[in-house]
Amino acid sequence: MKLDKLVGERFRERPAGCVIESHALMVRGGYMKGVANGIFSQYPPLRRVTRKLEQIIREEMDAIEGQEVSMPVVLPGALWEESGRYVSVGSELLRFQDRTGTPMVLGMTHEEAAVQLVREYGRTAARYPFMIYQIQTKFRDEARPRGGLIRVREFTMKDAYSFHTSQQDLERYYARCHRAYERIFARAGLPEVVSVASDSGMMGGSLSHEFMLLTPAGEDSVAVCGACGYRANVEAAACVAHNEPPAVLQPLQTVETPDAHTIEALCAFLHVIPAQCCKAVVYQKETDGSYVVLFLRGDLEANQTKLTNYLGCDVRPAAITPESGLCAGFIGPVGLCGGMTVLYDTSLQGTGNLVCGANRQGFHSTGLQLERDCGTVEYHDFAKLPDGGVCPVCGRPAIRVSRGVEVGNIFQLGAKYTQAMGMRYVDADGTEKTPVMGCYGIGVGRLAACVCEVRHDDHGPVWPLAIAPWQVHLCCLRADDAGTKAAADALYASLQKNGVEVLYDDRTVSAGVMFADADLLGIPVRVIVSPRNCAEGCFELAARDKTVKEKAPLAKAVQAVQALLRRLEDEAAAQVPPRL
Amino acid sequence: MKLDKLVGERFRERPAGCVIESHALMVRGGYMKGVANGIFSQYPPLRRVTRKLEQIIREEMDAIEGQEVSMPVVLPGALWEESGRYVSVGSELLRFQDRTGTPMVLGMTHEEAAVQLVREYGRTAARYPFMIYQIQTKFRDEARPRGGLIRVREFTMKDAYSFHTSQQDLERYYARCHRAYERIFARAGLPEVVSVASDSGMMGGSLSHEFMLLTPAGEDSVAVCGACGYRANVEAAACVAHNEPPAVLQPLQTVETPDAHTIEALCAFLHVIPAQCCKAVVYQKETDGSYVVLFLRGDLEANQTKLTNYLGCDVRPAAITPESGLCAGFIGPVGLCGGMTVLYDTSLQGTGNLVCGANRQGFHSTGLQLERDCGTVEYHDFAKLPDGGVCPVCGRPAIRVSRGVEVGNIFQLGAKYTQAMGMRYVDADGTEKTPVMGCYGIGVGRLAACVCEVRHDDHGPVWPLAIAPWQVHLCCLRADDAGTKAAADALYASLQKNGVEVLYDDRTVSAGVMFADADLLGIPVRVIVSPRNCAEGCFELAARDKTVKEKAPLAKAVQAVQALLRRLEDEAAAQVPPRL
Repeated sequence: MKLDKLVGERFRERPAGCVIESHALMVRGGYMKGVANGIFSQYPPLRRVTRKLEQIIREEMDAIEGQEVSMPVVLPGALWEESGRYVSVGSELLRFQDRTGTPMVLGMTHEEAAVQLVREYGRTAARYPFMIYQIQTKFRDEARPRGGLIRVREFTMKDAYSFHTSQQDLERYYARCHRAYERIFARAGLPEVVSVASDSGMMGGSLSHEFMLLTPAGEDSVAVCGACGYRANVEAAACVAHNEPPAVLQPLQTVETPDAHTIEALCAFLHVIPAQCCKAVVYQKETDGSYVVLFLRGDLEANQTKLTNYLGCDVRPAAITPESGLCAGFIGPVGLCGGMTVLYDTSLQGTGNLVCGANRQGFHSTGLQLERDCGTVEYHDFAKLPDGGVCPVCGRPAIRVSRGVEVGNIFQLGAKYTQAMGMRYVDADGTEKTPVMGCYGIGVGRLAACVCEVRHDDHGPVWPLAIAPWQVHLCCLRADDAGTKAAADALYASLQKNGVEVLYDDRTVSAGVMFADADLLGIPVRVIVSPRNCAEGCFELAARDKTVKEKAPLAKAVQAVQALLRRLEDEAAAQVPPRL
Repeated sequence: MKLDKLVGERFRERPAGCVIESHALMVRGGYMKGVANGIFSQYPPLRRVTRKLEQIIREEMDAIEGQEVSMPVVLPGALWEESGRYVSVGSELLRFQDRTGTPMVLGMTHEEAAVQLVREYGRTAARYPFMIYQIQTKFRDEARPRGGLIRVREFTMKDAYSFHTSQQDLERYYARCHRAYERIFARAGLPEVVSVASDSGMMGGSLSHEFMLLTPAGEDSVAVCGACGYRANVEAAACVAHNEPPAVLQPLQTVETPDAHTIEALCAFLHVIPAQCCKAVVYQKETDGSYVVLFLRGDLEANQTKLTNYLGCDVRPAAITPESGLCAGFIGPVGLCGGMTVLYDTSLQGTGNLVCGANRQGFHSTGLQLERDCGTVEYHDFAKLPDGGVCPVCGRPAIRVSRGVEVGNIFQLGAKYTQAMGMRYVDADGTEKTPVMGCYGIGVGRLAACVCEVRHDDHGPVWPLAIAPWQVHLCCLRADDAGTKAAADALYASLQKNGVEVLYDDRTVSAGVMFADADLLGIPVRVIVSPRNCAEGCFELAARDKTVKEKAPLAKAVQAVQALLRRLEDEAAAQVPPRL
C-alpha cells in the first residue's frame, strides 16, 4: 500500500479533549475518529491492528476447543427477562422497542443468548464440555465514556461461553482459558498484563479474574502484595484490619467540636489519629432512596462494590436532607435516628475509646466502645484495602495499590444462567441436572489502545510486530531523484513478492514530514532509501523502537528485512507462555 | 474437528414455518437458530461459511484498492439529519434515545457515516479517487422478515463507499466494482448471478444495479429480454405499450354493468378484452392520506415504485371510504370528483373506444377517448413491464419476468450525500467542488442462503469448495472395529498435517445416520473408511455432488484427496471472470 493513498490524516498538534496519550496519538495518527460520545469509526491502520488482534484471539480460542458462532447485537427483552437481568441491570443496558412495540435490547454481553443457542444441544451429557465464542459488536450505554478506546459505548468484543457438567471440569477449563488469555496478551505485545481476583458484579458467579494492564492511565485500582504476590482488584480485595483492644476503656462522653465537619478537622481538634475515629459514610439505595449508614475506621475508605453486593442493590452517595434526621458531619452510632440501614465494617471490631459523631450539630463523642454502647453489632467487610494495607492472604502489610486498565475478564458463573433459563442435561443415572458455565471476555479496541498506551514514545505508537498495521515502512527520501525512486520501487516490489506487508511512502515531502508520519504509524521495521546510500548500493534498516539502525547492501535488502522480522518474531515468541 | 463435538443439532423432520428450502435445510442441518422475528444466531458450520465469504469479499475489495475501515452500528440521529434521511426513511430505520435522551439510530446503511469519516481527508483533490469498506452488522426493522436468512432484520453486510472528482471517474470505478462483484459471486459458487438495472430507491442517485440470483424463492421480479439480453428489476424497467389508434371513434356512452366490479367481470359482460379497458388503481399518500387515482390500460399492473418516485413520497393501496367520493369498482376519468391526484399511464396514449368506470354504482362508459373526453392529458410510465411485454431497449415483445433474490447492489449516488453534508475539495483551479460518490453492498448471510438455495439436493446443501464449512468429511464406518478406527485416525491426522480442513465423524452410529448428517453438512469431498475397504487397503472417495465415487488405495489417500480438491478448485476458478 502506498502512503499517499492511505485514507486518514496525520497531524502534529495534540488534539483537544484527549486525557490519555494513546487517545491523543491514535487521533493524531489517523487511526480513529469520534462519531458520537464514546462511539468511534476506525481508519484503515487501526482496522488492520484490530483484525490482527482478532486473529490472535481466534487462534487461541480455537486452540482450547472453542467453536466460533455468531449471536445477534439486537436481542429480545424477553430473553433478558428469563435471566432476570432485564430488570436488574441499570441504564447501561440500552432498551428500546421495535416497530411492533416489542421490547428489545442492545447486547452488552451474551450469556442469555449463549444459553438460548445451546439449550437443546446441551440435553446430552456426553456432549460436555463445550465452548462457543464470537467476535462481535456490543453496546453499553456508559454514563462517562473516556480515554478514547479505553472506555467506549460501542465496542468489538470476543465473548466466550463454556458449559460443563461439574464445577471441577469448569475449573480445569477455566485454567486453560486463563493461560489462553496470558498467551493472547503476550502475543499482542503486552506480556506484562497480570490477572487479578475480581468482583463478579452483574455477571454473578463465584470466582472471577480480571486481566489488568497496570498503567497510570487506568481507572481501576489494583492491590498487589509485595510479599506473597497476591493480586486483586481493590473492589474485590478483602480488607483486613487488626485492632489491639485498649487496656482501659474510657466512658462515652460528649464534647463540643464546633467546626469539625471532617475527619481531618476532628483529629486536629481532638489530637487523635484517624484510626481512632469511627467514621460514618452515608448512601442511598437506588431502589427506594432509603438511607444506608456505614460506620468504618476513620483511616479507611468505603468500598461501594462490597456494599452493593451485601445489599443486593445499587447504592449512590447520599444527598443528606434536613428531613432525613441525619446530622451531616456529626453522625455517630449512638442515638442515631431509626428508619435506615446501619452497617459496621470489620475494621471497628475489637476497638474502643473511639471518637464518633454525637448526632448533634457541633458535637462528637469520645470513649466509644461499640458493643458496650450500641448492643450487639454485626461486622462485615465494607472497606477498601488501602495502599500499605495488610495482605488478606499472607497477612503482611505489603499491599501496594496501582491504577490499571482491565483488558479481559473471566468468570466462573456456576449455574446462575443455566438454572434461571431451564437448561438441563440428562445424567448417566437418568436424572436431570443443571450444567455450570464459564464466560470469558476481551475488548478488542481497548486492547489496541492499551498496547499503544504502554508502547509509544513522544512521536507515536511503537506497535509490536504481531499487530502492527504493516510490517515494514519503506521511505523513499527524494522520490524526485530517478535513481533513488527506481531503487525504492524495486525494493517495494520485491518485499511484496516475498509476502512482506509494506507501507510505501514515495511522496516528495521533506525527510522531517516523512519520518514524523512514519513515527505516528509506528510500524516496527523501517527501510530508508536515500540518494546518498543508494549511490553506495546501500539502504538504511531501522527498528521503530530504536534498537536497530544500520546500513545494509541493497542487493541483500529483502534478506536483511526478513532477518530483522524473524528476530522480532522470535523475541516476541519468547515472551509467550506455552499452551496448557 | 470431530463431528461428535460440533455444537448444533441435525434432524430429519422439516421444521415448521420454513417456506423456502434453504431455510429448512439450514435449520435441519444445525446452521442457525432463530432468536427473534428476523434475528438469528449462527452455529459453527454457518459461521465458517460466512467467514469464508467475508474473506472472498475482502480480497476482491482490496483488489480494487478498497481500504477496510470500521464504522459504528449505533449512529447519532443528527448525522442522518444532515442528509435528510432521519425524516425521509420509514420505520425500517430503528430510532431510539440513549440514556441522555439523544436521538440515535441503528445503522441500516452508512453513507452518512462514510462521508463523516472522510470529509476532512477529502479536502485535497490529489487524494481522489478512494474507496473505503467495512464488513459489519446492520439492522433494518423489516415489517415482514421471511425465508430464513433471505430477508432478516439484523444482518452482516459488506458496504463500500467510493469518492470521485468526476462522474467519468465514478463510472470507471463503478465498472471495476461491477466486475469485482461478478468475481465474488462466481467465487462463492454462484456464477449464474446476473446484474440488472434497478431503482435507486431511498439511496438516491442516478444509476444503480442489483445482482440477482434468479430463483422461484426470490421476492423480486426481474425482466429479461430474450432477444437483446436487456435485464432490469421490474420496479425499474420502462414499460412500453404501443397502441394503434382506432379508425373510427365511437361516442362516449354510459351502459349499465350491474355486477362488473372487476376487469374480468366487465370484459365478460361487455365482450371486450382487458386491453380495451381504462383501469383505475387507487392509492393514498403516506404523508397526508390524500387519494391518488392512477389510470392505466386494463391488461397492465401498476408499479408502485414508479409512482413513489414520481410523487416523491410513499403511497399505500387505498382504503376507499364513502366520504372519499370514489365509487369503488366503477371509477373512471370522466366526471371524477375533485381533490385528488389523477395520473395517466403511457399505456393509454393513442387509445380510443375504451371502456371505463362511469363514477356511478353499476355503470361503466364505452367509447372513451381521453383527450376528447377529458381535455389535455399528461402521460407517464407507471406500469409494470409484464411477462411477454415489449423490451424497452430492442422493442421486441420478448420480455420474460422471473423471480429473483437480490444478493448485492451498486449505486452511482452522485453528489446526494456529499452535497447535503458539505463535503468539498479544492480543485486545481482553486475553487471548491463537491465530490461524487458510489456505494456498493453485499449481504453476507443472504449470500450464504442463496448458495444453499440453488446448491442443494433433497438431503442437504452441496456447498461449493470455496465456502464449505470444511473441505473434507471423513467418515469412519464401524468405529468399533479397531483396525478401521486406526486407519481412519491415521488418515485424519495426515490430512490435517497437510493443511486440509477435515470434519471427522468417528461416532459409533449406523451408516444411515452418518451419511444423513454428512449430507446435511454438505462438505464437498467425502472420505469413507470401512472394514471391507480397509481389508483391501482401500478407502472410498466421493464428491457431495455425486460426480465422483471411487475406490482408492489408503496408502495414497492424502494425494487422492488433494487431487480431487485441486480439481474442484480448478473447475470453480474457470467460472470466475478476470479482474478489470
